[in-house]
Amino acid sequence: MFADAQSDPSLSKEEFDAQEPRLRAALLKAQYRLLERADRSLLIVVSGIDGAGKGGAINLLNEWMDPRHIHTLAFGAPTFDEQEHPPFWRYWNELPAKGKTGIVFGSWYVPLLLEASRKKPRPRRMTTYAEAITRFEAGLAAEGVQIIKLWYHLSAQAQADRTKVLLSSPETAWQVKPADRKVHKKYDRICRAGQQVIEHLNPPHAPWTIIPSADEHMRAIRTAQAVQQALQHRSPTPRAQVFNAPGLARRHSPDRLAQLDYHTKLDKEDYESELGLLQGQLARAVRSDAFRERSLILAFEGQDAAGKGGAIRRVTHALDLRQVDIHPISAPTPDELMHPYLWRFWRRLPRQGRIAIFDRSWYGRVLVERVEGFASTADWRRAYAEINDFERQQTDHGTIVLKFWLAITPEEQLQRFHERERSPFKNFKITPDDWRNREKWKQYASAANDMLARTDTEHAPWHVIGTNDKRYARVHVLKNIVAALEQTL
Amino acid sequence: MFADAQSDPSLSKEEFDAQEPRLRAALLKAQYRLLERADRSLLIVVSGIDGAGKGGAINLLNEWMDPRHIHTLAFGAPTFDEQEHPPFWRYWNELPAKGKTGIVFGSWYVPLLLEASRKKPRPRRMTTYAEAITRFEAGLAAEGVQIIKLWYHLSAQAQADRTKVLLSSPETAWQVKPADRKVHKKYDRICRAGQQVIEHLNPPHAPWTIIPSADEHMRAIRTAQAVQQALQHRSPTPRAQVFNAPGLARRHSPDRLAQLDYHTKLDKEDYESELGLLQGQLARAVRSDAFRERSLILAFEGQDAAGKGGAIRRVTHALDLRQVDIHPISAPTPDELMHPYLWRFWRRLPRQGRIAIFDRSWYGRVLVERVEGFASTADWRRAYAEINDFERQQTDHGTIVLKFWLAITPEEQLQRFHERERSPFKNFKITPDDWRNREKWKQYASAANDMLARTDTEHAPWHVIGTNDKRYARVHVLKNIVAALEQTL
Repeated sequence: MFADAQSDPSLSKEEFDAQEPRLRAALLKAQYRLLERADRSLLIVVSGIDGAGKGGAINLLNEWMDPRHIHTLAFGAPTFDEQEHPPFWRYWNELPAKGKTGIVFGSWYVPLLLEASRKKPRPRRMTTYAEAITRFEAGLAAEGVQIIKLWYHLSAQAQADRTKVLLSSPETAWQVKPADRKVHKKYDRICRAGQQVIEHLNPPHAPWTIIPSADEHMRAIRTAQAVQQALQHRSPTPRAQVFNAPGLARRHSPDRLAQLDYHTKLDKEDYESELGLLQGQLARAVRSDAFRERSLILAFEGQDAAGKGGAIRRVTHALDLRQVDIHPISAPTPDELMHPYLWRFWRRLPRQGRIAIFDRSWYGRVLVERVEGFASTADWRRAYAEINDFERQQTDHGTIVLKFWLAITPEEQLQRFHERERSPFKNFKITPDDWRNREKWKQYASAANDMLARTDTEHAPWHVIGTNDKRYARVHVLKNIVAALEQTL
Repeated sequence: MFADAQSDPSLSKEEFDAQEPRLRAALLKAQYRLLERADRSLLIVVSGIDGAGKGGAINLLNEWMDPRHIHTLAFGAPTFDEQEHPPFWRYWNELPAKGKTGIVFGSWYVPLLLEASRKKPRPRRMTTYAEAITRFEAGLAAEGVQIIKLWYHLSAQAQADRTKVLLSSPETAWQVKPADRKVHKKYDRICRAGQQVIEHLNPPHAPWTIIPSADEHMRAIRTAQAVQQALQHRSPTPRAQVFNAPGLARRHSPDRLAQLDYHTKLDKEDYESELGLLQGQLARAVRSDAFRERSLILAFEGQDAAGKGGAIRRVTHALDLRQVDIHPISAPTPDELMHPYLWRFWRRLPRQGRIAIFDRSWYGRVLVERVEGFASTADWRRAYAEINDFERQQTDHGTIVLKFWLAITPEEQLQRFHERERSPFKNFKITPDDWRNREKWKQYASAANDMLARTDTEHAPWHVIGTNDKRYARVHVLKNIVAALEQTL
């Protein structure tokens, strides 16, 4: 792979001067074309041997391209904030919008490269990191994020020479950090690690390019060429099989909604007593010391008028307002549409000790977007695995994820619609959309059944609750939350 | 003020039932009108006596209004993130967009109320908090944020009764937190504190309403009425004098730009040596332990083609990419236009140990927005004091704020424009806008001189540098940064 690892090819000043103007003009033209089309964003992952001039290459791109549309995304040690979320959260958070370019420094390859360059890499960890990266990159690529990865390479001799030259003058000596002086000893191991990573994580939708970096001119020209080619030629869409996500769904009947108990009722007195006691249990659980290290995500889905709002208010009544965020989810904003689908949900995840309640959720993609045709078939089909993976990343981090499908019968819905229409202060809740959705009852039910079959996982289970009787439903929502908390904490 | 403090007025169930439907319908109608007009946002500050049912009132508003357009902004103890920024950062960050409503719980009144309810409130702190609040609220109000403040009140007897009733059943006992049991003893002091705060911080643009809260029905109706009235009647615009901000500008000639040295030159050899040494000093300073507790904001302004980009790249060359964020500032996005002017800058402030570089900045309001008429005269006139206050909040927190005006002569600009036009990879930097701005040279110069006269403060100084010679300019930018860091750290 590093065939030229010992050769350090170079480019004369004359050759460089001959190529520079044309290349810069082409690069800019391609950048503006991306900006205008805004059909995708570009992520440039910058990695490689220490001292190969990664920082210089980033400066070069900022100088040669229009820097107003480039974001340098440089990640160091995780901040407190970042530590309170799953590892990929920081990268999701910073994704550039369509039309824009992000240069990633300190990328998701850092933990894998560190592991791979140990004396004895631990195979289990290597596999875990590599699989997570594979899913992450494939998911982004499928959502219109083009990824290219640049490996800045130079020989051991060139690395040593560079340090020597820099150290020879006080004007440049500061560029050599203490860590750089130790790095030579590890050259072989880092090289091996890079080689391994490049070989195994080099899919057509997120390819590596090796940039010979000993010579400044060569490095500049090759960097600009790689970026310009990426801007000009869109990468292929990843194949579907890379989305196989962890956590297979549990087996259930294919028509869970039809088999639900819609008719059990709870009288008012029992309801109030049970509700109060459950709220007390919930209040104690989320104020416990054990919960401070965890967090809780509650996602509510269900037919219109199934009682999501009422159920959510009974839950929040038990919570400290300072501990909870409620996110009503409707159609994505223009800004959200310029990012991968799951981006807006990643940004709303609770930090440790906190609770996020979603009134509708990321399941929109396999429900409304599927039924109404807002998402392509390929998009919503792929979403099941993506969602399972998304939730799994949360639960692996220690977050408790519970999902509720609140189900009513068509007859009950009709009655509630009429009731809403008659009320001067509830008629805002009923719109022509609701009536239209009702006509597609069967399509929505079938989408919901598919969703339940494919995303009811051990780590993030669905609770399907009949809500013809609101009291019964609310008590059962609380019961499930309390049970999950008591089991986990 | 709390005339009814001992009386606890109540409302019968019948009266409540008679008022509810009309009030809810009116509230919703007013909410939708705000949403449609989107001429302002509404902030509802919720405060008052413990146990008066503030949480219940927030739930009520979420139930009676359309919760999709309400954000509950509940602030507890500051997070790590929040501790690394000035105190008002958390409130700025969460401001709702125009058309939306935010309910603020744990507001900017908490520190003031805590101080005021001490046995002996410290007058100095009281004044500092009160002045900061006055400026904050006036600034928001002038920028289209309507503020109302609700004080939930009940008598000492009612407070004690409520606790007793709740404790009498396991279904409700959990609602009484351990702290609530102690609160009765402090009733008088909290009452006095509230009274003081309400009297002194009750401007027409951010008025207080007292909500009698012992009776649930009374509390609900009065809350809804207060919000409905606010939605219907816009508050008056604050008077200009409340903007008098701390940190008077230093005295300079009224035409600083004319008196600048544009002609000193630096030869290439001296330049490279000086630049390298200064970059080394900068690199050491920002990597020092002392800097970890501070942060650095660099704002670059100047005429088109004055060399901001080139100067910034010479600075970033000395920095660790993981430590710095570069923010190119251009016209606000639609989302940014829905928020107060300074919102987008608050959101880009560096946390501790970090550096933020602004390529153009919040000074746009008194430069391009003033000259091109994008801001009203009242808006840009008020901006000087707002900006001084904004910067002062950063420096009070320990941030170092440096501002650079890079100045060229009109002749030099013309030459650079032509040069850019001729270059195949620099012509993107020159647009019809640049030529139009050039025609308004005098207006821009006069706006810049005004800005320098009004915002060159001790805490956040302007460095005005002639840049006809790029080498001279770059070295001087670095010199000023290094000097400020060495003086502070």
